[in-house]
Amino acid sequence: MNLQLNEQGKLKHFLGIEGLKRELLIEILDTAAAFMHETKAVKKIPTLLGKTIINLFFEPSTRTRTTFELAAKRLSADVLNFNINTSSSSKGETLIDMLNNLEAMNCNMFVVRHNEAGAPLFMARHVPPHISIVNAGDGWHEHPTQAMLDMYTIREHKGDFAPLKVAIIGDILHSRVARSQIFALTTLGVAEVRVIAPYTLLPKGVADLGVNVHNRLKAGIKDVDVIIMLRLQKERMRSAFLPSEREYFHYYGLTEEVLNEAHPDAIVMHPGPINRNVEIESSVADGSRSVILEQVSNGIAVRMAVMAMALGCGKPSAQE
Amino acid sequence: MNLQLNEQGKLKHFLGIEGLKRELLIEILDTAAAFMHETKAVKKIPTLLGKTIINLFFEPSTRTRTTFELAAKRLSADVLNFNINTSSSSKGETLIDMLNNLEAMNCNMFVVRHNEAGAPLFMARHVPPHISIVNAGDGWHEHPTQAMLDMYTIREHKGDFAPLKVAIIGDILHSRVARSQIFALTTLGVAEVRVIAPYTLLPKGVADLGVNVHNRLKAGIKDVDVIIMLRLQKERMRSAFLPSEREYFHYYGLTEEVLNEAHPDAIVMHPGPINRNVEIESSVADGSRSVILEQVSNGIAVRMAVMAMALGCGKPSAQE
Amino acid sequence: MNLQLNEQGKLKHFLGIEGLKRELLIEILDTAAAFMHETKAVKKIPTLLGKTIINLFFEPSTRTRTTFELAAKRLSADVLNFNINTSSSSKGETLIDMLNNLEAMNCNMFVVRHNEAGAPLFMARHVPPHISIVNAGDGWHEHPTQAMLDMYTIREHKGDFAPLKVAIIGDILHSRVARSQIFALTTLGVAEVRVIAPYTLLPKGVADLGVNVHNRLKAGIKDVDVIIMLRLQKERMRSAFLPSEREYFHYYGLTEEVLNEAHPDAIVMHPGPINRNVEIESSVADGSRSVILEQVSNGIAVRMAVMAMALGCGKPSAQE
Repeated sequence: MNLQLNEQGKLKHFLGIEGLKRELLIEILDTAAAFMHETKAVKKIPTLLGKTIINLFFEPSTRTRTTFELAAKRLSADVLNFNINTSSSSKGETLIDMLNNLEAMNCNMFVVRHNEAGAPLFMARHVPPHISIVNAGDGWHEHPTQAMLDMYTIREHKGDFAPLKVAIIGDILHSRVARSQIFALTTLGVAEVRVIAPYTLLPKGVADLGVNVHNRLKAGIKDVDVIIMLRLQKERMRSAFLPSEREYFHYYGLTEEVLNEAHPDAIVMHPGPINRNVEIESSVADGSRSVILEQVSNGIAVRMAVMAMALGCGKPSAQE
Repeated sequence: MNLQLNEQGKLKHFLGIEGLKRELLIEILDTAAAFMHETKAVKKIPTLLGKTIINLFFEPSTRTRTTFELAAKRLSADVLNFNINTSSSSKGETLIDMLNNLEAMNCNMFVVRHNEAGAPLFMARHVPPHISIVNAGDGWHEHPTQAMLDMYTIREHKGDFAPLKVAIIGDILHSRVARSQIFALTTLGVAEVRVIAPYTLLPKGVADLGVNVHNRLKAGIKDVDVIIMLRLQKERMRSAFLPSEREYFHYYGLTEEVLNEAHPDAIVMHPGPINRNVEIESSVADGSRSVILEQVSNGIAVRMAVMAMALGCGKPSAQE
Repeated sequence: MNLQLNEQGKLKHFLGIEGLKRELLIEILDTAAAFMHETKAVKKIPTLLGKTIINLFFEPSTRTRTTFELAAKRLSADVLNFNINTSSSSKGETLIDMLNNLEAMNCNMFVVRHNEAGAPLFMARHVPPHISIVNAGDGWHEHPTQAMLDMYTIREHKGDFAPLKVAIIGDILHSRVARSQIFALTTLGVAEVRVIAPYTLLPKGVADLGVNVHNRLKAGIKDVDVIIMLRLQKERMRSAFLPSEREYFHYYGLTEEVLNEAHPDAIVMHPGPINRNVEIESSVADGSRSVILEQVSNGIAVRMAVMAMALGCGKPSAQE
């Protein structure tokens, strides 16, 4: 049985895309669409009024934390932010003791970012039934709300997933985003997922995930409908994975010229923040095919959906 | 006349337990019980809607600040957090000027934690009549909301205070929590309060507070109904008060074996965060007699009660 | 056309006082007065319910950020605070990319403090039509809400601006506050604005702004109705602008004795935080003519007015 689901098969925790059924992913997208529609009319929705959501960020983040916080506030929840470096963990408290204490405060959800893969799963196993865990990124494991906002953005532009060829380009090895995207795309049944990266940035056995592997960008990008760029962590440069930014851009940077190899209607995505002229040419990031900023907007609706579903509050009433 | 009370004898500021009457302590506990009941039905109560509460923390804290913030938000108040190290005090502003400015912003309450005993009293003397001060811990002086949540927890388990024998164990000397607990327990009329600590961690004249002093744990804990452990501040180790963690645990750590000396129904309390296997054995902290996490939950209800009472808003209407 | 106004001539952004018409300044003061009246009855006003306001502070600030936050919360807006040093700007994101991302989160207003003059203007040029920018202080350029709360305070005490003689005293050279005050006072048509400062703290061409320049305090303050002290930034001491605090106080500090030269009904203002006995004698700061703390209270009403107007929500309905 999947720990992410309750006894009725409904979303309880949102820890990763792996192992979730297509129907559930579609339900998340549909709920997000309903919230997107609802927030155009009324920006403050009472769905989570009286609920308390704690952002537990063991890694610094602005974008992800902010969109979770905005999503929660638009659903009328109370939000508390914990930056764990500055919290009582400095007093030597164990993670379990900290969780026990937060639970005792009658909170309803922890949104967790952690540098260790599996930390949200560990928490989900531990918390009592009235608390939901949402993974906001754990180590190299998964970042499932990012993948779902990407799926939302793809569906907005392409409608049907079935005929799509999708390329994910960049540092696959260290990317929890890429892992979640691969699980989501294959579960939603796209025609083909390609990953494009230098050998040093490909995880072993990646082909087992149901993707086609390319090392050359132009060949890999040929005729794809969706291009997903990954952010290049600059610290990789210093650790022998990569020779230099300039060389990386030369071989794997998405330029206007390279983009011409893709399908003429291909969209360009990136989880942000972008490194201009490192993994993506500035003119492409700002160009007509870029949907990067739409992804940000969609992220709030998708996070509203996941939070409302996990807390058993479903779609906005006006949409039911 | 007690500065903590207004002309009608109602709570205006909450600075310390010392000098408060039994009836007022009982009123706090009853109001907290009403809020505890109320928040089970509706988590958001409009009692303090439109009120602004400022957390003024001159010492870092996660647990206490968070429970005050949650308590305020459940009463629908607006909350602002000030960590004074990062505030304009670095511009050389005096404390009085800072207070004057915050007062001019039409706030209703300051929740104050300060490393100097008496800082909240100083503020209460200074602020205009529309502002209440709540002490969230001042130096070695008092931490009155902690003591009241402890009393709440004891009443929940034991009902009547009169027949109880209560032991407070650990660093009494440096503990504002212990001082507030002693005042609360003696005012509420328990049969006996014992303090158990090495000589180096006992304040001079502690017996004058109406407690019995013990230096040996097993003898001191004999037949008690309530065991209150104190947190051992690790920095005491480095300052000649204590030889080592290991030796402290040997003589004063609460183990399963020692616990057998207490009454069979004795409850074990701790203000947190706990130092496992320093002042308390892990299995005792997690055992069936431990009510440590209940204390955290009760802390929110008690802080709601104190805030609502000090702002003249009393119990939730459904309970009146 | 003024970028601060929309096509109907209404306030859209609030970047500076320079170039704004008298009628608009009066409208801000009248709206602030309406909010001041309204908040005496009901402290929580639904004017900005569902709006999201982001405090973007590239310079540290407690007082200004807090009053903007309180003003927004009293209008029922959601507020997010960004201290940019700790945000993802550390990931090398450009300012424009950061703005684009925040915009995509469907926020309504950025309240911006920046150490570079012109940063809010730059942002106002860039943001899409649904976003308003409010300048909370930019370099040595302007601090327009501070100037408007000063105007509000003057009007409360003096009624009509026309007959007033106003002196601004101190470090004019480095003061965005002084610049905004000069623009506001001359636009509102006071009889005379005087600036009083040592030569080293006067900007070149200051007389062109329509003010009279004085180097000697007693002569400059003669018969004025309003005295506006500026805060002396202590770091100026170390940079050859000034010999010492003591000497500055001797020549330019506002003492009781100097105050006697002003009109007997003169009021004393200061943007805070004050340096007691550096630019102002303690007894004057706390004296009967000081309106320094009223300025703080008025600041919230003025910021409510500016935010509501820029977001097209005007006065509270009860006042229309």
